[in-house]
Amino acid sequence: MGLADVLRDVVGPAHVLDDPDTTAPFERDWTGRFGGRAALVVRPADTAQVAAVVAACARAGAAIVPQGGNTGLVGGGVPRGGEVVVSLVRLNAIGAVDPALGVVEVGAGATLAALQQTARAAGFDAGLDFGARDSCTIGGAVACDAGGARALSHGTARTRVAGLEAVLADGTVVTRMAGLAKDNAGYDLPALLVGSEGTLGIVTRVLWRLEPRFDARVAALVPVASADAAAALLTALRAEAPTLESCDFFLDDGLELVLRYQRRASPIEPRAPFYVLAECAGRSDPTDELAAALERAGIEEALIADDTPGRDGLWALRELHPDAINAVAVPHKLDVGVPLAALGRFLDAVPRVLAEAAPDVPDARAILFGHLGDGNVHVNLLGPSPDDERADDAVLELVLASGGTISAEHGVGVAKARWLERARGAGEVAALRALKRALDPDGILNPGAVLPSPGLR
Amino acid sequence: MGLADVLRDVVGPAHVLDDPDTTAPFERDWTGRFGGRAALVVRPADTAQVAAVVAACARAGAAIVPQGGNTGLVGGGVPRGGEVVVSLVRLNAIGAVDPALGVVEVGAGATLAALQQTARAAGFDAGLDFGARDSCTIGGAVACDAGGARALSHGTARTRVAGLEAVLADGTVVTRMAGLAKDNAGYDLPALLVGSEGTLGIVTRVLWRLEPRFDARVAALVPVASADAAAALLTALRAEAPTLESCDFFLDDGLELVLRYQRRASPIEPRAPFYVLAECAGRSDPTDELAAALERAGIEEALIADDTPGRDGLWALRELHPDAINAVAVPHKLDVGVPLAALGRFLDAVPRVLAEAAPDVPDARAILFGHLGDGNVHVNLLGPSPDDERADDAVLELVLASGGTISAEHGVGVAKARWLERARGAGEVAALRALKRALDPDGILNPGAVLPSPGLR
Repeated sequence: MGLADVLRDVVGPAHVLDDPDTTAPFERDWTGRFGGRAALVVRPADTAQVAAVVAACARAGAAIVPQGGNTGLVGGGVPRGGEVVVSLVRLNAIGAVDPALGVVEVGAGATLAALQQTARAAGFDAGLDFGARDSCTIGGAVACDAGGARALSHGTARTRVAGLEAVLADGTVVTRMAGLAKDNAGYDLPALLVGSEGTLGIVTRVLWRLEPRFDARVAALVPVASADAAAALLTALRAEAPTLESCDFFLDDGLELVLRYQRRASPIEPRAPFYVLAECAGRSDPTDELAAALERAGIEEALIADDTPGRDGLWALRELHPDAINAVAVPHKLDVGVPLAALGRFLDAVPRVLAEAAPDVPDARAILFGHLGDGNVHVNLLGPSPDDERADDAVLELVLASGGTISAEHGVGVAKARWLERARGAGEVAALRALKRALDPDGILNPGAVLPSPGLR
Repeated sequence: MGLADVLRDVVGPAHVLDDPDTTAPFERDWTGRFGGRAALVVRPADTAQVAAVVAACARAGAAIVPQGGNTGLVGGGVPRGGEVVVSLVRLNAIGAVDPALGVVEVGAGATLAALQQTARAAGFDAGLDFGARDSCTIGGAVACDAGGARALSHGTARTRVAGLEAVLADGTVVTRMAGLAKDNAGYDLPALLVGSEGTLGIVTRVLWRLEPRFDARVAALVPVASADAAAALLTALRAEAPTLESCDFFLDDGLELVLRYQRRASPIEPRAPFYVLAECAGRSDPTDELAAALERAGIEEALIADDTPGRDGLWALRELHPDAINAVAVPHKLDVGVPLAALGRFLDAVPRVLAEAAPDVPDARAILFGHLGDGNVHVNLLGPSPDDERADDAVLELVLASGGTISAEHGVGVAKARWLERARGAGEVAALRALKRALDPDGILNPGAVLPSPGLR
């Protein structure tokens, strides 16, 4: 019996896709930069089926690409060519919120938005939020250690994991879902799986740590003269506004793209080189606190929104950046992190570095935006052809020279795998390779992602 | 040149100890239960020396036991016989607090008390506290993922690790000290090292995440009728007192031991079967909040202390339990965790289980205390001889039947290694063994700890 038939036995014939018309949506990523043909797309319904699928693929020596909502940006969730795509979207159950412990069990395939809704209905907050919330899955968020705008106050997805269930490369199911606040019986395998991008195991279920729900919210869009002025504003807000929940930024050329994409006029005049978007949240109205903090920081002009439509409108200016950029061209996307002290210099240097690296691409430009509070910059390079990575390389060199990281919250995927050794050093990458070989000796889980292929398969 | 001479070249002759008079303090643990002869005791001064020591031991095939303040309770930090003890106490530097990011660099050998003092002087709190604070080291706390009383509000040592430096079994130095809030470039090796008890690498330096310093504090010692009443009180305090920082418990027989050890009269009359010790902390005085929460929980009698001597006096009743017990006999110490919903039944069942397991030890008894908020119970068994583990086994079976963990905050060490497979299952332990082989193929780092010896060395 061939692998397809074995898998049909496991998940039912309707959930093994091999017709190119039905597999296509699973084969290419959202940006259009990454993708390949899948041998099959399999949609298991529960953890036991995932384990059986993985075991069958292991026996057949078939490589697996685990996939959540296919909202990844580094090619880590789509086939490179010939793999079995294991889609987790049917594992979308969300349990009842435990109000005493503030946790909820959630399947890997549930969307972040669905989890947010469940949390809010129970008086809690999911503690994680980013633009892809409606289609990204919890399993994917945990596999990439996703961050988003609220990492400033609530940490990344890692912080939310109070318990984890996963399937290893041989089909072993690891279940640590008791939610004990202290448990150090044996190595913390779940901690290693978080952020491993489906290369060490497939996350199937998470015991999610919730935050209290803060309904009193206010957002401020603040035009400033420079990146350094923005960094100074962040430091002031951190000190003066304990309710600060998120603090993002974008530049004027990005705002211009978004406004054209939205076909609307600018809500802010006069325009400025740099914009800070800060949100405060609490049990009681944080508007006065934010206004006072802005005043003490010497800010004279800001758009303040204390109602939901107003806040959504301000956040759209930031969150529509990826769509507005994609509407212009397929960008090279780099998600990097830089220590705050080096952020201003880094942002100022990117256009120069880009011009030097791709002098023969006269219309090359960088759209920069991201999460100021984490020093997390989304570098979108427009102009260079898809295969021209000279500018990418130059920007990543700049990141490392700034003491930063080549991947902040999107993951390494296949896009940055070849950069890992440069970033981490040969000795550390040798240790990471040893961990990969230990948990996936045949290299069937997401081959080519995180660690570059040579030596694995 | 023999290993001792090589190590003298690395650390200087004064820091390689081989005279039994000088090695003795490194060879036996604090409880007197665990220990053995060391081949040598080496005291490197910095990370480079640790790396050179490990590399030299690796070349010589010599097993290493890393040691911090030697305050461990599971035999994981003392030699079993013939190993090289690598003492980290000279790596005790503590850097300047970064007030903007709320972090501080601290050497593995610094004591928790020294870190607490540095943090407080800068307007912060270390966010971790337990009885051994004056002698335990930060490296040991991270290696065991120590918890303590404030894990309820601040999490365990893992939560404090914003960056980590460690030496792997081949002498490779892993340095992730940039303190970026988001960094997912490659597997989170530091997360795996936390809680691995020196079996996968030796922690040399930590970028420690601080908490705000709360100087307004109040503690309450509340006598209650039963474990279930205590659990109900905890739930009420959690809901009504957001400033709740810690919530410990002990029983009346433990209190009696402590009072005799202190040679003092009981501060609380009439006595009760069970005592809850709760502390609230905030920027402004939390006394009214705590008093109101206790009143709403139906508590009519409690000792309240809002000054430092008073709070210290109440906490001494809890923290002197280990000393008071050790003054009576060498106990069997089990550090376990049980879900809150099962805690009352568990505590009630321990004496019965003990009597059944050791019917021929008529004076056998269990002293129970710990951290109510985490379901973390320190089971101290008195009566059975050091080698008689029937009662230990029976209690650990009861823990697993209650959905709990055989190790909450002390670690597995050598004491519980043989229990790991029963607790985690054969499949998961196989994966943990594979991780150990990946990072320490020759099994030189703390052999016999965490994973039972067979198959390693």
